[in-house]
Amino acid sequence: MQNPTAAMIVIGDEILSGRTRDSNMHYLAGELTKVGIDLREVRVVPDETAAVVAAVNAVRALFDHVFTSGGIGPTHDDITADCIAAAFGVGIGVRDDARAILQAHYDRAGTVLNDARLRMARIPEGATLIENPVSSAPGFTLGNVHVMAGVPSVFQAMVASVLPTLTGGRPLLSQSYRIARGEGDIAGPLAALAGEYPDLIMGSYPFQKDGVYGANIVIRGQDGVRVDEAMVKLAALFPA
Amino acid sequence: MQNPTAAMIVIGDEILSGRTRDSNMHYLAGELTKVGIDLREVRVVPDETAAVVAAVNAVRALFDHVFTSGGIGPTHDDITADCIAAAFGVGIGVRDDARAILQAHYDRAGTVLNDARLRMARIPEGATLIENPVSSAPGFTLGNVHVMAGVPSVFQAMVASVLPTLTGGRPLLSQSYRIARGEGDIAGPLAALAGEYPDLIMGSYPFQKDGVYGANIVIRGQDGVRVDEAMVKLAALFPA
Repeated sequence: MQNPTAAMIVIGDEILSGRTRDSNMHYLAGELTKVGIDLREVRVVPDETAAVVAAVNAVRALFDHVFTSGGIGPTHDDITADCIAAAFGVGIGVRDDARAILQAHYDRAGTVLNDARLRMARIPEGATLIENPVSSAPGFTLGNVHVMAGVPSVFQAMVASVLPTLTGGRPLLSQSYRIARGEGDIAGPLAALAGEYPDLIMGSYPFQKDGVYGANIVIRGQDGVRVDEAMVKLAALFPA
Repeated sequence: MQNPTAAMIVIGDEILSGRTRDSNMHYLAGELTKVGIDLREVRVVPDETAAVVAAVNAVRALFDHVFTSGGIGPTHDDITADCIAAAFGVGIGVRDDARAILQAHYDRAGTVLNDARLRMARIPEGATLIENPVSSAPGFTLGNVHVMAGVPSVFQAMVASVLPTLTGGRPLLSQSYRIARGEGDIAGPLAALAGEYPDLIMGSYPFQKDGVYGANIVIRGQDGVRVDEAMVKLAALFPA
């Protein structure tokens, strides 16, 4: 059985300009691997309606799940909820349950729920809310698209809210082996080994440290016995 | 005059599985911003021919420049050069000048230029080599696609080789201002200010630190006088 597939869309001018270094992609990649959902593509797009809508519609047709990060706050550059509504061709407006969540949050803080903050209760029609235990303003799921905040602590909390609701697959197991020889020496035997194990993925990740050239060889697969077996053969080819 | 546009394609299973955290995207984004080339999209794709070819052909038609990272080493999972040749519909083979660069490098190191290492001299027809002062094996430019290594030190050296050969635009200037108030308080006045300056990009990046909510407001534009003017008005709206 194939694992479910996923794509991620990172929405934000600040990533593309180099001002901010994204961390949500790396976090999501690790979490999806743990539950056996294969992240197959990531796109980073600017805060522009046409770009976001095009990316969402392209990837939601190709993959089982789409996760977005960024653009769901109260300011004028937060356009993601409107983009998702446009991508699905549905309406969007302030929803009572989302408003109630915000009202309770700001009442506790002694802060007024003004028009700007109320924007965070605008949810596309037909969506399910994603709980935000950090700062209350919810994310949402519409169809196979899970829309989450860009602030890393909030993004991570929302991922923790969403993932248990999804059906995962068999987690990808992985083992790695460090070889202190140049990739050019490793490549031939490694390619032959990879040919023997077409069900496994073998990657070579070169390093150079203190004048030593080498590579970390990573063997990945869903069957732990096969991964073990291949790893033993690799170690025999390149004894430490 | 519009600045030239660019996209980046990061090629690598290790990024999508969460094993490795990519750093080349953030580096390239910063370097392009300095020279006035607008990075408009990034795609991260797996080490699979169909995925790489589709991504390359999609973005090279949309943007002035495409930068790729990853997959040009000597091992069996290094498929980028073949993918680029396939995307452009041209042949690929070992090229004499690339072979000579590798031969000189390995002669100096006292290492044999074996078949695996020779793979790194396979260059698509019609390409120009990109110098690699770190580890010799060259990148290449074909059409508007600049193909570079994934190892960060090599990637950065290749970016330094390529960028001076490209025509840039007006660098995007940026100033930021820290406001220790919730985004919900900032959003209304900020939206009005953004409306007054349609030539500038105003972004709000919330933070939460030691119980204080606030946001860094970043104003970007090509005209420094306009950025200054808007920043003075922003500071007057939200005195420190």
